[in-house]
Amino acid sequence: MPEIVFGVDQSRPFREQKTLGHNRWHPDVPPVTVVKPGAEFRIECREWFDGTIGDNDSADDVRDADLTMVHQLSGPIGVEGARPGDLLIVDILDVGACPQDDTFAVTGPVAGQGWGYTGLFARENGGGFLTDHFPGAYKAVWDFHGQRATSRHVPGVELTGMIHPGLMGTAPSARLLAEWNAREGALRATDPNRVPPLSLPPEPIAAVLGSMDAARAAEAAREAARTAPPRENGGNQDIKNLTAGSRIFYPVFVDGAKLSVGDLHFCQGDGEITFCGAIEMGGFIDLRVDVIKGGMETYGVTTNPIFMPGRSAPQYGEYLTFTGFSVTEDGEQRYLDSTLAYRRACLNAITYLTKFGYTPEQAYLILGAAPIEGRFSGVVDIPNACATLYLPTEIFDVDIRPSAAGPVRVDRGQCATTSD
Amino acid sequence: MPEIVFGVDQSRPFREQKTLGHNRWHPDVPPVTVVKPGAEFRIECREWFDGTIGDNDSADDVRDADLTMVHQLSGPIGVEGARPGDLLIVDILDVGACPQDDTFAVTGPVAGQGWGYTGLFARENGGGFLTDHFPGAYKAVWDFHGQRATSRHVPGVELTGMIHPGLMGTAPSARLLAEWNAREGALRATDPNRVPPLSLPPEPIAAVLGSMDAARAAEAAREAARTAPPRENGGNQDIKNLTAGSRIFYPVFVDGAKLSVGDLHFCQGDGEITFCGAIEMGGFIDLRVDVIKGGMETYGVTTNPIFMPGRSAPQYGEYLTFTGFSVTEDGEQRYLDSTLAYRRACLNAITYLTKFGYTPEQAYLILGAAPIEGRFSGVVDIPNACATLYLPTEIFDVDIRPSAAGPVRVDRGQCATTSD
Amino acid sequence: MPEIVFGVDQSRPFREQKTLGHNRWHPDVPPVTVVKPGAEFRIECREWFDGTIGDNDSADDVRDADLTMVHQLSGPIGVEGARPGDLLIVDILDVGACPQDDTFAVTGPVAGQGWGYTGLFARENGGGFLTDHFPGAYKAVWDFHGQRATSRHVPGVELTGMIHPGLMGTAPSARLLAEWNAREGALRATDPNRVPPLSLPPEPIAAVLGSMDAARAAEAAREAARTAPPRENGGNQDIKNLTAGSRIFYPVFVDGAKLSVGDLHFCQGDGEITFCGAIEMGGFIDLRVDVIKGGMETYGVTTNPIFMPGRSAPQYGEYLTFTGFSVTEDGEQRYLDSTLAYRRACLNAITYLTKFGYTPEQAYLILGAAPIEGRFSGVVDIPNACATLYLPTEIFDVDIRPSAAGPVRVDRGQCATTSD
Amino acid sequence: MPEIVFGVDQSRPFREQKTLGHNRWHPDVPPVTVVKPGAEFRIECREWFDGTIGDNDSADDVRDADLTMVHQLSGPIGVEGARPGDLLIVDILDVGACPQDDTFAVTGPVAGQGWGYTGLFARENGGGFLTDHFPGAYKAVWDFHGQRATSRHVPGVELTGMIHPGLMGTAPSARLLAEWNAREGALRATDPNRVPPLSLPPEPIAAVLGSMDAARAAEAAREAARTAPPRENGGNQDIKNLTAGSRIFYPVFVDGAKLSVGDLHFCQGDGEITFCGAIEMGGFIDLRVDVIKGGMETYGVTTNPIFMPGRSAPQYGEYLTFTGFSVTEDGEQRYLDSTLAYRRACLNAITYLTKFGYTPEQAYLILGAAPIEGRFSGVVDIPNACATLYLPTEIFDVDIRPSAAGPVRVDRGQCATTSD
Repeated sequence: MPEIVFGVDQSRPFREQKTLGHNRWHPDVPPVTVVKPGAEFRIECREWFDGTIGDNDSADDVRDADLTMVHQLSGPIGVEGARPGDLLIVDILDVGACPQDDTFAVTGPVAGQGWGYTGLFARENGGGFLTDHFPGAYKAVWDFHGQRATSRHVPGVELTGMIHPGLMGTAPSARLLAEWNAREGALRATDPNRVPPLSLPPEPIAAVLGSMDAARAAEAAREAARTAPPRENGGNQDIKNLTAGSRIFYPVFVDGAKLSVGDLHFCQGDGEITFCGAIEMGGFIDLRVDVIKGGMETYGVTTNPIFMPGRSAPQYGEYLTFTGFSVTEDGEQRYLDSTLAYRRACLNAITYLTKFGYTPEQAYLILGAAPIEGRFSGVVDIPNACATLYLPTEIFDVDIRPSAAGPVRVDRGQCATTSD
Repeated sequence: MPEIVFGVDQSRPFREQKTLGHNRWHPDVPPVTVVKPGAEFRIECREWFDGTIGDNDSADDVRDADLTMVHQLSGPIGVEGARPGDLLIVDILDVGACPQDDTFAVTGPVAGQGWGYTGLFARENGGGFLTDHFPGAYKAVWDFHGQRATSRHVPGVELTGMIHPGLMGTAPSARLLAEWNAREGALRATDPNRVPPLSLPPEPIAAVLGSMDAARAAEAAREAARTAPPRENGGNQDIKNLTAGSRIFYPVFVDGAKLSVGDLHFCQGDGEITFCGAIEMGGFIDLRVDVIKGGMETYGVTTNPIFMPGRSAPQYGEYLTFTGFSVTEDGEQRYLDSTLAYRRACLNAITYLTKFGYTPEQAYLILGAAPIEGRFSGVVDIPNACATLYLPTEIFDVDIRPSAAGPVRVDRGQCATTSD
Repeated sequence: MPEIVFGVDQSRPFREQKTLGHNRWHPDVPPVTVVKPGAEFRIECREWFDGTIGDNDSADDVRDADLTMVHQLSGPIGVEGARPGDLLIVDILDVGACPQDDTFAVTGPVAGQGWGYTGLFARENGGGFLTDHFPGAYKAVWDFHGQRATSRHVPGVELTGMIHPGLMGTAPSARLLAEWNAREGALRATDPNRVPPLSLPPEPIAAVLGSMDAARAAEAAREAARTAPPRENGGNQDIKNLTAGSRIFYPVFVDGAKLSVGDLHFCQGDGEITFCGAIEMGGFIDLRVDVIKGGMETYGVTTNPIFMPGRSAPQYGEYLTFTGFSVTEDGEQRYLDSTLAYRRACLNAITYLTKFGYTPEQAYLILGAAPIEGRFSGVVDIPNACATLYLPTEIFDVDIRPSAAGPVRVDRGQCATTSD
Repeated sequence: MPEIVFGVDQSRPFREQKTLGHNRWHPDVPPVTVVKPGAEFRIECREWFDGTIGDNDSADDVRDADLTMVHQLSGPIGVEGARPGDLLIVDILDVGACPQDDTFAVTGPVAGQGWGYTGLFARENGGGFLTDHFPGAYKAVWDFHGQRATSRHVPGVELTGMIHPGLMGTAPSARLLAEWNAREGALRATDPNRVPPLSLPPEPIAAVLGSMDAARAAEAAREAARTAPPRENGGNQDIKNLTAGSRIFYPVFVDGAKLSVGDLHFCQGDGEITFCGAIEMGGFIDLRVDVIKGGMETYGVTTNPIFMPGRSAPQYGEYLTFTGFSVTEDGEQRYLDSTLAYRRACLNAITYLTKFGYTPEQAYLILGAAPIEGRFSGVVDIPNACATLYLPTEIFDVDIRPSAAGPVRVDRGQCATTSD
């Protein structure tokens, strides 16, 4: 077991931890430690809403979640000798939920302590991929059974976990940060009052910038980037395939690379379509780092990380696949819009699952949490992009394949809803 | 071996075949035969450009390809008892290139006869996914070696085939056809002079409508839909996973369902990004059909087919993955644009492969033909969609993984280019 | 499609073909052709019983099968420049059942023409792995549906094919042949009257030795080796994983290597436990050959071929696994006897399947034909070897997993039996 | 995280633990606790040699290992309501090495605390599968890196773990125990002085029988069965595929079933051919149990457990396969002896690996620890059984495939050896 270089006390909030992490991207967040190339170490993580979402049957906490606080990132970890232009090799040696504590407690009150959750955010509070169809807040709590998970809120489903970090990345340079702010601001300016917004501006409220001194932090918080979008440094890529055994090559933009990580997921479908979509949890991640000097230029890896996935993702033998193309629900034709095509594929899958007794909200939560594959199948056949969504049939306790006999409809109750 | 219900003489053009197929969608194309539910049968297919693309080292034929002729579809096959509202079950029992002929000829002059091709269309003639970066016409000819393919135009690559039909579907109803024409026309009207166009209007020139009588055909050709886009009836979905063993459930819109198929691919990457992107070929497909009465409503499968992929797709053990997000090459931020994100991932992969000695055109052709996986990884992390492109490393004859040693650069020559 | 270097007319018996193959191993069988390293070519094959087993509901033909005629081998193919001590690289480019003939006949009377069979041999005529439990003759006829097979004799099972050659190998040297005869004769001498015999002696009756002249052939037939066992030259290895895409490295014992092939299987379980166990068929195989000069010594590959399996074997997602150890059915303890352990695992699987309505004979036929995995799990835990048998659950039309609800028993009829 | 029902203090020997386990099978070992059907719980385990094998560079500890002490089993766990004739369902929810302790120690002195070992036992002390070829004692220490392992004693190899329990099972009834003793004694009597012995008799020395009172234990130890062999109750099956996610169905022979588990392995090749062959370690296993009343008869599962493997075993994309048949190294023909065939395949693989610079001992250790597949390929082709050994090529840091260029020979040093 590697040394813990960033420890977390899961009974305390993020900003009251002994070692302070950060929830904004900024080049000047001081490293919590500096490791040598080749080092292996453990990082512990808070779940992305810092323990404010509970193991209960109400979605009020999801409805009221404070998006200014996310994401709670552990780090940054400095890497000795890493310089701008290098590639930082990061091997995910292991990743998991909060380990069992000394008291042998079965579960704890914080996501990651034996359980996790999937949320649908309300339209007024971030929304999600299908927010026009699902404007309210909903939640499913998942119980962990070793490598599997079940949920009382979506009965009849048992997943094998595909544990991965939703968010990992290096620090941006000052110049890169300025680019982010410029381009995202320009987009936001095209429709500044949109709900949900087109992008999120820097937000000093609730900003945490590690051990940066207070005066500097107050200034930096006005420009530090929000962590929601993935960017050149990796960040919130939400790639479900970054499981244990994966090797990622991150561009380095600042001295020491400054690697940070958070937003662990027990499982997730491609797209993380419910936004708070994966099975969210706190936990730990074991990493090994190394450096390819000058690797960005040598390999042409300048605008995004590249990676090699691990070998141990769950293998399903059978999928039911839904397709979609780029015509809106109202029949309007769009031009090669893959996002729309995938939305239609998701909606098709939801409609299908309701035939088996799931509510639309439950079906949506399943697609967010289960290891569905979402693929770009055609992107050139004008005007229709074609997207495909592969749903593993083996996660269900009934046969969900179409047949002449018709679907087995079971009463599946409902997921957690809000009190109003 | 099942009975051939649609035979093709590969030495003759599509419109000179004994049994005439069609290259437009129209509800009134008469079925070439009617089979019973449960029937198994073979259909032979011309390649999508009807043999006009040659096994040679010039891309002039691709540059000059006549898009009004595509796609050469075999069918329609009527299915006894199928009625609008049903689901048509189609099992792909087998699919392959043109079988060896009686003369034991090693190869023939038509794609599918021992070889296939991948093309990059010129911007003026259809273009492709990256047409702004690759405005010219290029080609790679692939030689089949049983289940594998190699190309003198992209040396150092050997693929295991993932043979599938690019295009298969049922006939639209008159009402559905009208909807298609209305919505695609409305889109086209927003920028009628765009090159390439936003969509393709009905085109009487070169239209073939099976055995429809001449007068009726002349009229029908003015409204019959082009076959490029995938639509509610399936059609040109270009889903690489529709390999042998797949079972598809198509909505039925007309009596008899009227199933047609064509555009066979020896292999293809997700997105078929070069447009003429797969390894194109003629060949055969063996199908079994059945009907789920009233299945569209029963299962909520009304706007798109659903399917279950086969078990025998090639298994690769290692992938190098490229990511992209929705910022343009010029740095402009777009909102959750997955098509753009995938384009950036493709461009990243192309840049990377050039470090190993491939020209950008060769790299582009590889991504079109090889069984790359293209996934929607994040579609909710505003404003950036995140797309991932998984390239199987085992198709290359050198190690393409990043390392401190740097890339092995080999002179790979060039693909087929145009004479001007 | 490669050139056919060994053609077969499936309407004529093996010994009446234009090009004569062989059914014994002997160094002096003349090559039917000589190809260059790098050559790709097609070989056609008769099924191993030369068309004497019929597509009918009686096992009399299996009961009366003449074992002196097997196996019908196509070849030998000489490889230019191959010398003793080299390794012969053989790539299986493709392998399949008899292609559709010119008459578009749906099926033909010879196995491989749209169908195949699995047989249980009677104890008096070769027997099988469980001959003490199944002394009679039984048969199942399998209908091919593209890449899948079903059988009216074991209803409720649908397999995805795992097509491979049961038998392929190079010619032995005279010295190696002498070793074979010596060691197999010595074994046989320990119990010369055993039924079934411990090994098969050279058998001039029904021997075919290609184009060897009659006088020489009469002499050679007295020493030529039977083809049943696998040996140093490969031969009848019955390795189900030698599917298309495999690369085998055979030791070369004679000038030109002299490669022969036959006994094609549509599918087979590990062990080919029913002896005539795979789904037997005639068909074709496409090969590419090359030579590693001196490779036997360089790589230490002297006593057996080595190989790399292909990428396209069917992928099953769920298995039910049976175990066995080395105690006989009568309770006698044996020492680390893996053959016995596997026999017990097979018997356990058969008992289990009978709970679902299959007769023991049907269950046995399933295990011979389906792509079961048979593994050496423990071979050191004295005194019990542990063997495991993995049965893919997805080949059945009912759920065969154990549950509190108990097995779904369906009347499955019976396989083909003998008339007496 | 489930409740710990059997805790282990890894700093104390097995017989000094607060809760005492057992190292012999006997029906009367009292349960350490009784759980209800449906319960989930954690069990901690000592490694099989109770911490006497060290993380060092000498194999003296392996040479001198005391076989009378094995295996240290955790349990038995009683299951409420389980009766003879039932099937006990055991779900492996998770299994892993010793979790990180409170002191954040990187590693500890006991196998499982960040490392594990593979040993070759000396012929005089148990031997192994190839003891005639490797009569001495050797060792490799493996360092854990999350889900992977490397060894300074076999450099150039990196494995992805396939963590599983080597030994798990229910208690035998008194009658079954008597059968074991009778049949294993009868075998031993056929060659009582053999080294290594044919089987192991009951051995009061070092016997531990849980909380059984001393007088009763002294008596029981004279008949309690050794734990080396797998038997009707499961036991030491050494099935590498019993990874997390597996579901096993054990026959129940005594009231309460009395489940015990131990001998955890980080990884293992099929056969565990070095005897102490897997990567041995202590750790934990999380289980869920349930009962199928009367399941032994209902499903015909009476002589061995059956199971369904989990979904997350590492996926390798390429294997190099070695074959063997049942002729001894001296050229003596045996009859369908699969154990011999597998031995020959193992020896072939070892010879091959020495061409790349590994010593034979290192190669042997690799085959014991790496997730090799060992298959029964042919068991009916008299007189030769055919066995195959699939070695994943991707575990090596050099290309081990045969080629015209010849093997890359690297100095790999040597594994740990004995001091004499």
